Amino acid sequence: MQPNDPVVRLISEFSKLPGVGEKTAMRLAYYVLRTDAHDIQQLTEALTAAKERVRFCEECFTFTELSPCQTCTSPSRNRLLVCVIEKPADLMAIENSQRFTGQYHVLHGVLSPLDGIGPDQLRIRELIARIAKNQIQEVILALNPTVEGEATGVYLTKLLSPLGVTVTKIAHGIPVGGVLEYIDRQTIGRALENRVASKF
Amino acid sequence: MQPNDPVVRLISEFSKLPGVGEKTAMRLAYYVLRTDAHDIQQLTEALTAAKERVRFCEECFTFTELSPCQTCTSPSRNRLLVCVIEKPADLMAIENSQRFTGQYHVLHGVLSPLDGIGPDQLRIRELIARIAKNQIQEVILALNPTVEGEATGVYLTKLLSPLGVTVTKIAHGIPVGGVLEYIDRQTIGRALENRVASKF
Repeated sequence: MQPNDPVVRLISEFSKLPGVGEKTAMRLAYYVLRTDAHDIQQLTEALTAAKERVRFCEECFTFTELSPCQTCTSPSRNRLLVCVIEKPADLMAIENSQRFTGQYHVLHGVLSPLDGIGPDQLRIRELIARIAKNQIQEVILALNPTVEGEATGVYLTKLLSPLGVTVTKIAHGIPVGGVLEYIDRQTIGRALENRVASKF
Repeated sequence: MQPNDPVVRLISEFSKLPGVGEKTAMRLAYYVLRTDAHDIQQLTEALTAAKERVRFCEECFTFTELSPCQTCTSPSRNRLLVCVIEKPADLMAIENSQRFTGQYHVLHGVLSPLDGIGPDQLRIRELIARIAKNQIQEVILALNPTVEGEATGVYLTKLLSPLGVTVTKIAHGIPVGGVLEYIDRQTIGRALENRVASKF
C-alpha cells in the first residue's frame, strides 16, 4: 500500500497517540473502517470540539470550556483551601475520591532542571498571587511521589510558608513510584485525610 | 463536570474504541488537549478520509480507496492463486511476511451459527464466482485456528474441491488459539510455505 493510502495514513496517525503501537493502531484503524460512519463522526467532532472550545482556567489552570471553571466558581467549594496538582488529569482523579471540597491549582509539571523546567515554567507565580488575592489559608500539595515531585514539594513549602499559609502534603499511602492519575479513589481519599505538615 | 463538557465527551468517545478503558481514554483525552491543534486536525482528517474514501474492493472485499484494489489489479501478482482470509487486517499481516504473491479474498468473518453467521453472511458466493471467472487453480485457506475458523475451513474445502480447484490451508506453526493479525511475519511466512492439502 502507498503512504497516501487513507488506511495507512489512519494507522500512522493512531500510532502517534501515547501507548499505541503499530498493532494497536492497525486494530483501531480497522475498527474505524468497519464501524458506522455516524459513530466515527461523533469521535471526530469530540476531538475538534475539545481542541476548539477547551482552554485553561484563568484561576486554577485546569482545562475548561468556561473560564473561570466550574470548580473555581462553585459557591459550595471552600475557597480558602487549595490543592496543588501537577496536571489536569490529577484533578479528575482527586474529584473521583469525593473527599475534597476545596479548589485546585494546576502547576502543569514539576521542577525538573535537567529538562529545563524551573519555577518560571510552572504556574507558581500565579499560585502566589492567588494565595494573596483569595486569602487562602491552606495549600495541600498533591504531587506525585517521584524525585521531581518531592523536590517541587520542598521548594513550594519553603516558598509559601513565609506567606502565612499552612502548607500540607497528601499522606503516604500512595505507593512510592506510583502515578497519581492511576490510583484508586479510596487510596486517594485516605491520602487526603491523612495529610501532614510539610517540613523542610 | 457535566456530561456535555467537551473533555467528558471526548473521554466517552475514546472509551468506545476497542481495548480502551476509562483510564486510557482519560490519558488519550489529556494528550489531545495538550497536543498541537494541527496534529489533532491531522488525526481527525485521517479519520474522516478513511470513512469517506475507503470502500470494499469489488473483487476481494478488502478495504480500498480504488476498486478493484491495488492487489487485485497488480500485473505482478499471481491471479490463479487466492488466499482466503477472515478480515482485511489479516491481509496486511500476510503482506508483511513478503512470502505471498497471489491475490486475496476476504470473507468478513467465519461461520458461527450461534451468532447467526452462516455462509450467506460471508463473501463465499463471491469467492465461488471468482474461482469460475478467473479460473483460479489454488485456494489457500488462511483462517485463524479457532473452532469457527477450522469449521469454516472444512466447509469451504467440501464446497470448493468439487469445482476442480486445489484447496490448501496454511501450516500449523501458528500457535493454536493465537490470532492471525498479531503473529510475527516469519511465522506467517513459514505457515504459507508449509501449506498442506485440506481434507474432510
